[in-house]
Amino acid sequence: MVQSMTKVHPRDVRETLRQIEEAQRAGCELMRVAIPDDEAVEALTEIREGSPIPIVADLHFNPKLALKVLRRGIDGIRVNPGTLPRGALKEVLSAAKEKDVVVRIGINAGSLPKGYLHYSSPSEAMVACALDTLQLAESLGLQKIKVSLKASEVLETIKAYRKFSMLSDYPLHLGITEAGPPFSGAIKSAVGMGILLNEGIGDTIRVSLTGPPILEVKAAYHILGALGLRRRGVEIISCPTCGRCEVDILPIVRELEERLQSVSYPIKVAVMGCVVNGPGEAKGADIGIAAGKSKGVLFRKGKVIEKLPPEQWVERLLEEVNRLIPSEGSGCRGSSETR
Amino acid sequence: MVQSMTKVHPRDVRETLRQIEEAQRAGCELMRVAIPDDEAVEALTEIREGSPIPIVADLHFNPKLALKVLRRGIDGIRVNPGTLPRGALKEVLSAAKEKDVVVRIGINAGSLPKGYLHYSSPSEAMVACALDTLQLAESLGLQKIKVSLKASEVLETIKAYRKFSMLSDYPLHLGITEAGPPFSGAIKSAVGMGILLNEGIGDTIRVSLTGPPILEVKAAYHILGALGLRRRGVEIISCPTCGRCEVDILPIVRELEERLQSVSYPIKVAVMGCVVNGPGEAKGADIGIAAGKSKGVLFRKGKVIEKLPPEQWVERLLEEVNRLIPSEGSGCRGSSETR
Repeated sequence: MVQSMTKVHPRDVRETLRQIEEAQRAGCELMRVAIPDDEAVEALTEIREGSPIPIVADLHFNPKLALKVLRRGIDGIRVNPGTLPRGALKEVLSAAKEKDVVVRIGINAGSLPKGYLHYSSPSEAMVACALDTLQLAESLGLQKIKVSLKASEVLETIKAYRKFSMLSDYPLHLGITEAGPPFSGAIKSAVGMGILLNEGIGDTIRVSLTGPPILEVKAAYHILGALGLRRRGVEIISCPTCGRCEVDILPIVRELEERLQSVSYPIKVAVMGCVVNGPGEAKGADIGIAAGKSKGVLFRKGKVIEKLPPEQWVERLLEEVNRLIPSEGSGCRGSSETR
Repeated sequence: MVQSMTKVHPRDVRETLRQIEEAQRAGCELMRVAIPDDEAVEALTEIREGSPIPIVADLHFNPKLALKVLRRGIDGIRVNPGTLPRGALKEVLSAAKEKDVVVRIGINAGSLPKGYLHYSSPSEAMVACALDTLQLAESLGLQKIKVSLKASEVLETIKAYRKFSMLSDYPLHLGITEAGPPFSGAIKSAVGMGILLNEGIGDTIRVSLTGPPILEVKAAYHILGALGLRRRGVEIISCPTCGRCEVDILPIVRELEERLQSVSYPIKVAVMGCVVNGPGEAKGADIGIAAGKSKGVLFRKGKVIEKLPPEQWVERLLEEVNRLIPSEGSGCRGSSETR
């Protein structure tokens, strides 16, 4: 399950819902919303009513806010034993149990309770803290539990999830925390989550990026797609270009990426820089173009089907993509004239 | 070793060298240049003379070009048994041996020789083709050899490298071929190379992106940094922001990323959205700011050292970063006035 988190105070219900809807169209299946104060609690009802996907409330420091949220109704809550003292945590978990609400025990290497700071490594401390919190939750009869063990250090995160997954069967929510700006943050997340998911560890994921939620969702699907776990939308296979390239394919790739971003049906589109080995090298693509100086070849599954002048490449590719999408699927944007 | 490839025809010596120098400043240690024709061969001498890093010639189809390049002198060559018939390949490998030039046997799932198309999977075919080519190379007495087994499918690439590394000790050059545009291509590459490097597989890497070489190099270091294999430049640890955030940290992160991009010394800089748990959550950072509504706190290794109004955050952070860089290291760009 692909998750994200809204980036504004919930009092801005309109922007919160806009972010949720945009992320949902990109494949987001669950949205977390921070609840820092009473104003946020007030807004939550309207947000839940307007949201096309379930909402998880992110709760720290103030158990009263958590209890209010649970009374008003919520799809899930995230608690962090590092930001709620044990007594308060117990109260919140009991209320969640009573309301039959899913709880994520979200451990974070940077906000561990004081009692866990003597461990030899952040991963050991996170696992110990998670296990202790689970014991408390189980003693209260809680069953609907997910666990996360996030650090900003990729290797510590991997160690924590690996160790925990050997000791416990609770579903795991994966993430690298404070991963940073989109490009480097997505790479860091892809390394960490890629390694874990490839080992069969992880049930839900969120890529944390300093950027809009839609980017987090796109990054998540690129990771899942690379591992063959879930494919969604257009995968662009494009050569990096080199001195052999007779046409600058960069603007073509950019335009296709932009105009195909609303497609949810999984399709591989190739844009290759030369006709010599383009179709061969992109055999795995559903449809593609191999650029030549005056003509490019349109190919389907590695077979050349048509020769086209450069000005027709993008429109013909979009046409072909639309043809490949089953009628109930979402299509790509129309020609530039109708945009 | 981090590699990249130039993106223009070598006849444009000036742009080729500009790309090489830009990539080198970002940490590129070896540059590949495509040699599609005689004009490229002619340009190569000037490019080699002007380049601060070794040049590998990428040779396909025409053995005569390869022989000419070897006669003129080159740091390394890349050959693909799928684009040079066995006789021609033998001739080229012999010449490389004679000139004591490093050869990369670069297998590509999409351009395998016809004899390997009956294998059950691209990974099996790539490994078989690599082993056969190595046998030929060894029979000619060649020793300076690297091998790559690239596919655009991440899982096939992983399988190929894993299998090959169990059967052979030759150094491996890692890559996901035709990975695509920067964001998705870097993620795909991070998943594939992250998994392999984490298993100890891979000696040199190139991230193939449909974008400038400098982006490929940056992506490579983000992958290596995430795995703790090699750290270079500024790692920005920044929270994804949420409803708890009192200041929009996105523009701050963007400005820091931009102005710190020339730093090569490894430093972790944190930008956190709230003062409450910012410094704690970014304890691993060398220096950082945790944003509050009217004041932000500057912290070093998790300890608050100063309170600052928003307009001073970026400049003070840059100042602190410069202070942390040993004098021989490269500094970040000065204040916006002096840019």
